[in-house]
Amino acid sequence: MKVAVIGCGTIANAEHIPAYLKNPHVEIKYFCDIVPERAHAAVEKYQCGTAVTDYHAVLQDPEVAALSICTPNNVHAPIAIDAMRAEKHVLCEKPASRTWDEVQEMIRVQHETGMTLNIGVVNRFNDSVRRIKQYIDAGKLGHVYHVYVSFRAHRSIPGIGGPFTTRAIAGGGALIDWGVHYLDIVMYCLGDPQTKTVSGETFCQLGRDIPDYVYTNMWSSRTRDVNGTYDVDDSVTALIRTEGPVITVHGAWAQNIGVKETYIDFMGDKGGIRLDYGGKFTFYGAEFGSLISYQPEFEMTDMFQNEIDAFVDCVQTGKKLPSHIDTVAVTARMMQAIYDSAARHEEIRLD
Amino acid sequence: MKVAVIGCGTIANAEHIPAYLKNPHVEIKYFCDIVPERAHAAVEKYQCGTAVTDYHAVLQDPEVAALSICTPNNVHAPIAIDAMRAEKHVLCEKPASRTWDEVQEMIRVQHETGMTLNIGVVNRFNDSVRRIKQYIDAGKLGHVYHVYVSFRAHRSIPGIGGPFTTRAIAGGGALIDWGVHYLDIVMYCLGDPQTKTVSGETFCQLGRDIPDYVYTNMWSSRTRDVNGTYDVDDSVTALIRTEGPVITVHGAWAQNIGVKETYIDFMGDKGGIRLDYGGKFTFYGAEFGSLISYQPEFEMTDMFQNEIDAFVDCVQTGKKLPSHIDTVAVTARMMQAIYDSAARHEEIRLD
Amino acid sequence: MKVAVIGCGTIANAEHIPAYLKNPHVEIKYFCDIVPERAHAAVEKYQCGTAVTDYHAVLQDPEVAALSICTPNNVHAPIAIDAMRAEKHVLCEKPASRTWDEVQEMIRVQHETGMTLNIGVVNRFNDSVRRIKQYIDAGKLGHVYHVYVSFRAHRSIPGIGGPFTTRAIAGGGALIDWGVHYLDIVMYCLGDPQTKTVSGETFCQLGRDIPDYVYTNMWSSRTRDVNGTYDVDDSVTALIRTEGPVITVHGAWAQNIGVKETYIDFMGDKGGIRLDYGGKFTFYGAEFGSLISYQPEFEMTDMFQNEIDAFVDCVQTGKKLPSHIDTVAVTARMMQAIYDSAARHEEIRLD
Amino acid sequence: MKVAVIGCGTIANAEHIPAYLKNPHVEIKYFCDIVPERAHAAVEKYQCGTAVTDYHAVLQDPEVAALSICTPNNVHAPIAIDAMRAEKHVLCEKPASRTWDEVQEMIRVQHETGMTLNIGVVNRFNDSVRRIKQYIDAGKLGHVYHVYVSFRAHRSIPGIGGPFTTRAIAGGGALIDWGVHYLDIVMYCLGDPQTKTVSGETFCQLGRDIPDYVYTNMWSSRTRDVNGTYDVDDSVTALIRTEGPVITVHGAWAQNIGVKETYIDFMGDKGGIRLDYGGKFTFYGAEFGSLISYQPEFEMTDMFQNEIDAFVDCVQTGKKLPSHIDTVAVTARMMQAIYDSAARHEEIRLD
Repeated sequence: MKVAVIGCGTIANAEHIPAYLKNPHVEIKYFCDIVPERAHAAVEKYQCGTAVTDYHAVLQDPEVAALSICTPNNVHAPIAIDAMRAEKHVLCEKPASRTWDEVQEMIRVQHETGMTLNIGVVNRFNDSVRRIKQYIDAGKLGHVYHVYVSFRAHRSIPGIGGPFTTRAIAGGGALIDWGVHYLDIVMYCLGDPQTKTVSGETFCQLGRDIPDYVYTNMWSSRTRDVNGTYDVDDSVTALIRTEGPVITVHGAWAQNIGVKETYIDFMGDKGGIRLDYGGKFTFYGAEFGSLISYQPEFEMTDMFQNEIDAFVDCVQTGKKLPSHIDTVAVTARMMQAIYDSAARHEEIRLD
Repeated sequence: MKVAVIGCGTIANAEHIPAYLKNPHVEIKYFCDIVPERAHAAVEKYQCGTAVTDYHAVLQDPEVAALSICTPNNVHAPIAIDAMRAEKHVLCEKPASRTWDEVQEMIRVQHETGMTLNIGVVNRFNDSVRRIKQYIDAGKLGHVYHVYVSFRAHRSIPGIGGPFTTRAIAGGGALIDWGVHYLDIVMYCLGDPQTKTVSGETFCQLGRDIPDYVYTNMWSSRTRDVNGTYDVDDSVTALIRTEGPVITVHGAWAQNIGVKETYIDFMGDKGGIRLDYGGKFTFYGAEFGSLISYQPEFEMTDMFQNEIDAFVDCVQTGKKLPSHIDTVAVTARMMQAIYDSAARHEEIRLD
Repeated sequence: MKVAVIGCGTIANAEHIPAYLKNPHVEIKYFCDIVPERAHAAVEKYQCGTAVTDYHAVLQDPEVAALSICTPNNVHAPIAIDAMRAEKHVLCEKPASRTWDEVQEMIRVQHETGMTLNIGVVNRFNDSVRRIKQYIDAGKLGHVYHVYVSFRAHRSIPGIGGPFTTRAIAGGGALIDWGVHYLDIVMYCLGDPQTKTVSGETFCQLGRDIPDYVYTNMWSSRTRDVNGTYDVDDSVTALIRTEGPVITVHGAWAQNIGVKETYIDFMGDKGGIRLDYGGKFTFYGAEFGSLISYQPEFEMTDMFQNEIDAFVDCVQTGKKLPSHIDTVAVTARMMQAIYDSAARHEEIRLD
Repeated sequence: MKVAVIGCGTIANAEHIPAYLKNPHVEIKYFCDIVPERAHAAVEKYQCGTAVTDYHAVLQDPEVAALSICTPNNVHAPIAIDAMRAEKHVLCEKPASRTWDEVQEMIRVQHETGMTLNIGVVNRFNDSVRRIKQYIDAGKLGHVYHVYVSFRAHRSIPGIGGPFTTRAIAGGGALIDWGVHYLDIVMYCLGDPQTKTVSGETFCQLGRDIPDYVYTNMWSSRTRDVNGTYDVDDSVTALIRTEGPVITVHGAWAQNIGVKETYIDFMGDKGGIRLDYGGKFTFYGAEFGSLISYQPEFEMTDMFQNEIDAFVDCVQTGKKLPSHIDTVAVTARMMQAIYDSAARHEEIRLD
């Protein structure tokens, strides 16, 4: 099976390409990037494929069965839509797109064309997250009534002044970039309940003064672009009522509190779980009149490899994965509602 | 100056009585409790005063200038109102009362009678809290845009089945009992901004099965009352927009997450502060291109003693304290709105 | 209810007497000890009772309903037997007696007289032990196939040269003094299965040279008696087959390995428990493909108080306790078999 | 000197081959494995020798002086016997063979042919073990009366479902695979005393449900063979009386107790030693009225290199090594007796 990688930046090189190379059923035929150097660098580094700068060239090759979209968020929707119409299966990085309108268009085209459209909500392939879903489904937590989502960092604005911090490109900041993972984990573990109300606020406070933003390290880019744009949320909070539990959200790419608190608390009447994001989890409960807690031990597999392998498998078998665009719709709509509520400073009903 | 203590339970014996005894201007003339043994025990223990069971007896004594109300919440309002009408000055334990209606009535009578009515929002006399207010007033945090309030414990329901867990007596649970302190600190430090919107949810999950509630220790009472009532919130979350910062609230007397996270984060664009509730605080900021953080060192004085001394002083001088019922009104109204929003499952506007 | 304490040494003063004093239904009428000073010291210290040196005096007082035997092991049987024949209920310290023959005689007289005869297997009133029994009974460990009993200390010979180290008085050493507790816990938690085979060895190696035995501290007596006797086991090992699990025993009052390893491992096919003797326990298991372990949290009550309270209650109600001499017979017979196997250097069958 | 390696699996590649390659007197002429790929892979990897699949081809080559047997246990005896009869010297991996009968046959043929037959009891070439033997021989421990052998792991079943867990191939499980090393160390340090009685029990509890056995990692193979066999002991305990000390054995490849306790305690009346298996050791004693303990510091050499070097030397000089089959006979017979005792549930006499 021949595939193409559209966008040869950080996430492509760190995760998608190595995972495709390890999958025995796949050959990477194209590396596509609007920056020619990046496409050529990939060909040279991985010793395979052809470098192209226009993704339409890829779409015209009938040998290509599927592609990964690893571009900035603003071109997720157009590329995915064009690809599906060209009868390519698509694995599109998260977030699905910048806005709920764009996501709805992607869903519409997926339903029309019947091509696979998976979103890179890679935590659905994470060993801890899968186990937490098992615990909740098996009733170990009893009635889960509240979830607290914390994705707070001291200084983690990515490439300040670049595409990540430009609303027209990224669609948003901390919420759309980090929050999407956390909210998706919550939705997945809870069985994707519908959203009822959303009240949220976003803050653009620490990054807006690009030249004077103090940091000790930065990801995606190592230096600030002082002539760039910063018009996204560096911090967000929300209270969400769903058909299932209430969700309280508190996230920050940057804040003047020097802690890293990145976890999700699932609170049930019989038990609770704290997921250390990216790591293991702890179960809390009671039995025989005693309080108990423990951290299950298990082997962690590579969630990106799992995601790519599952994508390849579903292209070949037609299986619908938990990362299908349909399942991601709830989170996309919820994030849109947080941004809308923040703009209007009032709660929004979605039911 | 002669005073009386109405209600001779835990808070009276632990804080009010010892503080009055240490104040050189005061003599305790009455210990009043509807349980005669408790009143007599106080007389015997402190070797002063007279034991009475009906607070009206105290109100009729013209020698009594002031009194502390240390009773369950349901009689805060009637005793305070009767006392002011009998021309006594009043220090009433927190919360002011069970509902915003009751508090409004207390305010009305205070304004009519002109007597002092202070509420036991004792953290306004705490050295850390006072300093944080100074930092914010001095602009060290810049624009404070968000406050996160966490008062979460693993197992801390007080006297399950007793007055603390009975709505008709206490008015509520974790929010009215613990949250009142945290929200009051926030209001005090921020200069008492008006509330605009409140969206909240309360949960009654862990305590409602009184016989099977598992705990390793319990305050206020050491054993459960299996025939008692549990109809209050053991957990609460809210998102509050004010004229100043947004406030996110997350509190629990009990939860199936085995952590104690009791702190308040004040997030500003120039700096931030985490207050370790009951302890010191840490300041986070940036200067000369570096990130900095430090915990100021200072002596902690006894905030209850400060409160009592200030009350005695204001009775004698007529000074208006930051714990005056007027300043507490904002928090009382906010808490009522959280309970109302939780009941209706929708956001409430207060502006 | 009037009781007497026979033997006013360490265990009486540390545990029995304080527990009787805290029990509201009991009055201590006699303190009996063959050393008059010890009996008088008790009367003075506890401000109650009469000092006597001959226990027959106690037996003749019809007011005395029950008594605790806190003497050396060699007089457990004669006093218990005389007491039951005098229609007194008896709580006799562990071990029941020095030999299985003596224990059988005690059982015979208990059955004849119908008086209560409980043995001080106090761990049957310990919160950890009781919970472990619940875990096993509830099937949390699955099939329990092996138990490893470790009561190993570096230097803990009690009062070397005194009654504890004299076979004619104590009946044995480390096994009869410490092992009795461990084996009794195992028997209790497993539902008292019958013993099938016993192969054991005892060692008298470190204590036999009384003057040169090196230690840093010593219990029961603070100094050695160089003219005393040391003819008991300071170390023991055994392999026991029961109708339930196999038990491996390894214990030492003293050994030239500088560790304190005092625990019991219950190994089942679904889960296992390590009891930290005198403390809490850890559960090990597997669920949802993960390995888990945790230490339940609960409040530890005073097991000696529980024992005394239960004894008083059973004297008044006739209830049969888990510490009844009948339930202790299995362990007494097993210990005898270990000593016999060690003497003959071969396995003994008991079925 | 030309040698051959029979069986090119884990132990051959990890230890035997590298050690032969470092020995200046040796050239590997054959890599033999019934799986041709493994033999060829060795030739390619080490750039020497010839790949063969039938060991008889090796035996017919008069140039080959000696060979290492690194096969599964079931072919140890036939290959060793054929090799000696073909006048080859043999270094056979541990255990000597699956049963005592097979070992006796190997001894018989060794005596007949006079060829060297060493067993891979490699700890006899370990620096800690050799030093412990020196301590005991020099009388530093006094009379060694008891040895406690612990080889307990939480989850360490090797290649579940494969040759290690199939009795017909391996002869046994935890005892024959791990226990052989520990018992051999004990025998070596104590001067190979004869066994008098053996009472043992083996347990096949955690591994028998191959699909549901939970582990976080596994050696020898990374994945389970769900269609394979598991009919060996995952746990064992025994009490052994010898002409010297009593030995208590407790070992487990897997158990529901989450500890790794792999050590041997030598208990003497003057001193004791705890050997941390695979590492250093601690000496405990007393002198001048004080208790002392220390861990000797010394350089650890590669015991496998020592073993191979000694084998090469003894082939050339005819020296009899401490790993000669004669010295291993005691342990082989003892292990057989543990399995026999476990099968009959009673003690076995060997004297």
